[in-house]
Amino acid sequence: MAAKLKTAVLGATGYSGLELTRILLRHPRLEKPVLLRRTTDNGGASDLADVFPALSGNGGYPLRPLSWTALQQQGIQLLFLATPHEASRSLVPEAMAHGLRVIDLSGAWRLKQECHRAIYGFQDSDALTAAQLTEKAVYGLPELNAARIADAALVANPGCYATSVILALAPLLRAGVVDRGRGIISDSKSGASGGGKEPSAKTHFVSVADNLSAYSLFNHRHVGEMVEQLGLNTQDLTFTPHLLPIPRGILSTIYVHLDRPMTPPEVESCLRTFYSGKRWVRIFATPKLPQVQFSLNTNYCDLGFCLAEDGRRLVLISCIDNLLKGAAGQAVQNLNLMYGWAEDEGLQ
Amino acid sequence: MAAKLKTAVLGATGYSGLELTRILLRHPRLEKPVLLRRTTDNGGASDLADVFPALSGNGGYPLRPLSWTALQQQGIQLLFLATPHEASRSLVPEAMAHGLRVIDLSGAWRLKQECHRAIYGFQDSDALTAAQLTEKAVYGLPELNAARIADAALVANPGCYATSVILALAPLLRAGVVDRGRGIISDSKSGASGGGKEPSAKTHFVSVADNLSAYSLFNHRHVGEMVEQLGLNTQDLTFTPHLLPIPRGILSTIYVHLDRPMTPPEVESCLRTFYSGKRWVRIFATPKLPQVQFSLNTNYCDLGFCLAEDGRRLVLISCIDNLLKGAAGQAVQNLNLMYGWAEDEGLQ
Amino acid sequence: MAAKLKTAVLGATGYSGLELTRILLRHPRLEKPVLLRRTTDNGGASDLADVFPALSGNGGYPLRPLSWTALQQQGIQLLFLATPHEASRSLVPEAMAHGLRVIDLSGAWRLKQECHRAIYGFQDSDALTAAQLTEKAVYGLPELNAARIADAALVANPGCYATSVILALAPLLRAGVVDRGRGIISDSKSGASGGGKEPSAKTHFVSVADNLSAYSLFNHRHVGEMVEQLGLNTQDLTFTPHLLPIPRGILSTIYVHLDRPMTPPEVESCLRTFYSGKRWVRIFATPKLPQVQFSLNTNYCDLGFCLAEDGRRLVLISCIDNLLKGAAGQAVQNLNLMYGWAEDEGLQ
Amino acid sequence: MAAKLKTAVLGATGYSGLELTRILLRHPRLEKPVLLRRTTDNGGASDLADVFPALSGNGGYPLRPLSWTALQQQGIQLLFLATPHEASRSLVPEAMAHGLRVIDLSGAWRLKQECHRAIYGFQDSDALTAAQLTEKAVYGLPELNAARIADAALVANPGCYATSVILALAPLLRAGVVDRGRGIISDSKSGASGGGKEPSAKTHFVSVADNLSAYSLFNHRHVGEMVEQLGLNTQDLTFTPHLLPIPRGILSTIYVHLDRPMTPPEVESCLRTFYSGKRWVRIFATPKLPQVQFSLNTNYCDLGFCLAEDGRRLVLISCIDNLLKGAAGQAVQNLNLMYGWAEDEGLQ
Repeated sequence: MAAKLKTAVLGATGYSGLELTRILLRHPRLEKPVLLRRTTDNGGASDLADVFPALSGNGGYPLRPLSWTALQQQGIQLLFLATPHEASRSLVPEAMAHGLRVIDLSGAWRLKQECHRAIYGFQDSDALTAAQLTEKAVYGLPELNAARIADAALVANPGCYATSVILALAPLLRAGVVDRGRGIISDSKSGASGGGKEPSAKTHFVSVADNLSAYSLFNHRHVGEMVEQLGLNTQDLTFTPHLLPIPRGILSTIYVHLDRPMTPPEVESCLRTFYSGKRWVRIFATPKLPQVQFSLNTNYCDLGFCLAEDGRRLVLISCIDNLLKGAAGQAVQNLNLMYGWAEDEGLQ
Repeated sequence: MAAKLKTAVLGATGYSGLELTRILLRHPRLEKPVLLRRTTDNGGASDLADVFPALSGNGGYPLRPLSWTALQQQGIQLLFLATPHEASRSLVPEAMAHGLRVIDLSGAWRLKQECHRAIYGFQDSDALTAAQLTEKAVYGLPELNAARIADAALVANPGCYATSVILALAPLLRAGVVDRGRGIISDSKSGASGGGKEPSAKTHFVSVADNLSAYSLFNHRHVGEMVEQLGLNTQDLTFTPHLLPIPRGILSTIYVHLDRPMTPPEVESCLRTFYSGKRWVRIFATPKLPQVQFSLNTNYCDLGFCLAEDGRRLVLISCIDNLLKGAAGQAVQNLNLMYGWAEDEGLQ
Repeated sequence: MAAKLKTAVLGATGYSGLELTRILLRHPRLEKPVLLRRTTDNGGASDLADVFPALSGNGGYPLRPLSWTALQQQGIQLLFLATPHEASRSLVPEAMAHGLRVIDLSGAWRLKQECHRAIYGFQDSDALTAAQLTEKAVYGLPELNAARIADAALVANPGCYATSVILALAPLLRAGVVDRGRGIISDSKSGASGGGKEPSAKTHFVSVADNLSAYSLFNHRHVGEMVEQLGLNTQDLTFTPHLLPIPRGILSTIYVHLDRPMTPPEVESCLRTFYSGKRWVRIFATPKLPQVQFSLNTNYCDLGFCLAEDGRRLVLISCIDNLLKGAAGQAVQNLNLMYGWAEDEGLQ
Repeated sequence: MAAKLKTAVLGATGYSGLELTRILLRHPRLEKPVLLRRTTDNGGASDLADVFPALSGNGGYPLRPLSWTALQQQGIQLLFLATPHEASRSLVPEAMAHGLRVIDLSGAWRLKQECHRAIYGFQDSDALTAAQLTEKAVYGLPELNAARIADAALVANPGCYATSVILALAPLLRAGVVDRGRGIISDSKSGASGGGKEPSAKTHFVSVADNLSAYSLFNHRHVGEMVEQLGLNTQDLTFTPHLLPIPRGILSTIYVHLDRPMTPPEVESCLRTFYSGKRWVRIFATPKLPQVQFSLNTNYCDLGFCLAEDGRRLVLISCIDNLLKGAAGQAVQNLNLMYGWAEDEGLQ
């Protein structure tokens, strides 16, 4: 058997980073990943099991300070960044200068167009390099960009909401059956882990439990990814995220008008054809619909739909686990593509 | 002070019936309500505190078998029905024949048009009387129909989803600023008490917790109420209800296109003007938005909105407590109107 | 009717302070309370409805900076402190020096014995005054100390856990039927509002939801109150608090050995006799038991029990709403006693 | 490599049966298990993915009617029963008569003593066979009975509560350091899946959410298992189960008095020595304590403790996932022992 790949993770102490580490630890093609910490992470915890006691009892998961020379000496070939986008923006050029391939889970390198990227307000110290890397970065949605991911030096792992929306809409938009002029709406709902681990008034248990709230209307960062990947204009898509009183999971309810009346079998066929052979998308046959629970703790994106009697008004339901298909699972799916392994290696 | 009104409640053992009873018990204009039971209710519990121990310690709430003659002898003037729609459909003619005014919380008498009512599949034993009562019944949404409610012998209390949607849309539709041709969408989410107290696989804690699911797409009974009250065609409105992992509360996210570009102050003014002097509607000024928690345990309908930069795409957020403004609270608001009392009597 | 009492609240922006304010606003004996803020509260919010939008739509609840002279000029007679214990420790002497009666919801003045108070680590600037106030302060558990509360200038409102435990144990301990040598255990569980509003890793929704955890074993501040009020030695009582994944409510499961075998009716009689005429304690007859839901949103302490066949091992179940009977409701109950009003005035 | 073992599961449509099936499907030593259904299961669903859509997309999991001859022809060697105890009581004799080894997840065969078994009220059609099987059945707690499980023809898989309590207490009781005369208390809390999938008023979302309730005081079936396995008298142990508003997980808070004062390192050493080499028990070093979340979705039993300053009063905290270490995971651990495989095969 081939030698196992050596990888490292920076940011394992966050929700996505933890899920990622768990997957990497049981991935049959990998050596145990090197876990790196930034000095600001959790007061300098020296072992991941101290941050997540659920990991205890298996011999320890030391968190080491980041050192590019140490990574090179250890033979690390690929670095996962589960860091805030500002950090990823400055770390990726360094990592690539040291010869590492990078899968970045943040929003730092997902967007090609300046108009969409502006919302992040990046302060690039080397604008030329940043522009070059932006050009090279591949948007890591395997169902759409598999070939380019395979060769990528830098994969920008998609946002969780964006994954759920793009995968639902891509088949119909590519088939050219959507009446864009009528507008596309995604009413999306996410569990609280989507907002990250930082304590705040908004993530306090008492604020989230027994509640539902909409936020960032017409103003969410993931819209840029959606319109770039789907070839839409910003005003074609109305996206409303909501905070659900659950730890994890996303359900997007997506409304489109079809150009011409279709039948449910035609819609189902459109979805099935597009995702034929795709390991991590499940199509639900009408009248069955995905629910958040069905895809929890899996890397699946579940898609279902319901068509009005007029054959024109179509509602799509798209569910993912925001920490897996929406983050860590998809990152590993990208890893598998980058090294020519089966797309579900380590993810079953 | 005037003599207190004598009322009775049938169906106090359900979620809405319990909330209703609690309000009636502290309503300053009422005698302690007579609580009636059908023989099928909870194996014939003889006291409401046996069904809801939260009520214990206050001297008992006897549940008596329904008898029209007993109600007449006791001087009962008004009957609340918190019963399934089939039961309400057969009980209302009897009650009115015995001279009672009725506030019915079910869907039995809300719809004027046969096409919308068909979904209920009523089996009226006396079709003529049923037709006459359908004619006489007043849709009990106080913010729209106050004058007619005041004189009504039969008030059909609105559905919970319908309340949240109609109150959000009425001001803009009446103002004539909505582009109906582009379609109106209400993506609504409700807590589990909205589905009633009957145990089922769908209402099992393990099925609801950590989950979100859409249901009854293009097929929910409340759509008829919405389109009748708003003067819409069925195909103008796409309504998608979802089951939230919370006990109570509704949030509707409603999408409309405006005929012409408007500014946020214009939209706010449209809402404020329409609900000027209305005690139980609160308008949130942009960028504040209602959340489910804010209206819980109150009779408020909270309305907020966000307008896209293009001034055309408008998202309305409407929140109510499904058991209060969506059921029992609204029933008492209707009662207050029927007897000329202040609209918040008993509801503060 | 007598002139209404003028009160003020400092700390209305916390969970207990908000509940307190809501009760005071509808209390028929009171003028609308003056709401005070410390400069550190919520970045200097100037209206309570900005902090809790659930309060909006009723004309505003201005938060004013604390000024002793302004309070005197306004004729304020009683001050509620819903502040952290360090703040209460320094504010109470000032308030009393300005002639105000005080109901303090914190732990600052509950404990008589230095050994129990040590855990708080108070830094009294004027030790003599602090000692005198400690002497004068009355522990505000109305069911035990009604007479002394009536005359108190300073009422130390009990802790939430302490309320649930003391009320369950007092009847049996006073009756002298408990075998203290065998030890008393309270295994208590509280909703997340008990930990206060401050965001932290421990109160993050993802940490609390789908979880249960024990904390502060043999080391919780409320144990001092329990043993002082019940006349126990510290080692007689083992108290284990747990954090429940619910917003509010406490259930204490309390284990005692009886000196001699008793029957269920004897135990029930002991409880009923002790709480005869007490408005806010409900005794559940075997085999019924209190549940957290039953006392939510009420000022009740619900007590039930189950006795082993041996007649010696007794389990008591005690439930309260931690923000009402465990904090704000009890504070108002104390207020009512201090002014000779009915114990449920404003609390029904 | 050796031929894979052929197994069958009856009851895969319940919560434990589903978890079991999921584990068996990825167990490297097994062929895909044959899934059997009783005619009463879910209206005769013919595929497990129809009952649990989370399983869809992997080629189907047909549910076949139970036929002993078919099982023999297919070469099935071991049968898992995830059935109600009445069903297991009548099925096990038949299965064993057909030469199958059986792991039964119900309470049918766990108890040796008639006094404890009486609570189940079994109606054995063949009392002699039942008595013989009772004698032969091995209580399947691997950490205590590994050697006997290896040779067993019938393994009675422990109850979920019993697992959490027995594993916490066994080390100290076997070490002889517990003062049994002072009594042992287990205050246990379980998620709602512990009550099974049957819809009822008690498992309705609205009854469980925002609530906590104690039940079956001095009267729970699992007490028999605890006292039999721990060598206690029934009156030595007070066990109080509570229903938590979470889908899964158990936390038991267990109170014992020690015979003589011990130190925390002595207690920790006692636990660590007892479980030395045991793969599925984790000991938490003071002051760390297990929480429900830490063992969710794993087969671990997590144990922690806190000792009072007097060195005598000891509180043990024991956490498991009730569907894994408390049911399906433990069943697979038993399977591994029965066939001489590593104890974590299929469970990592």
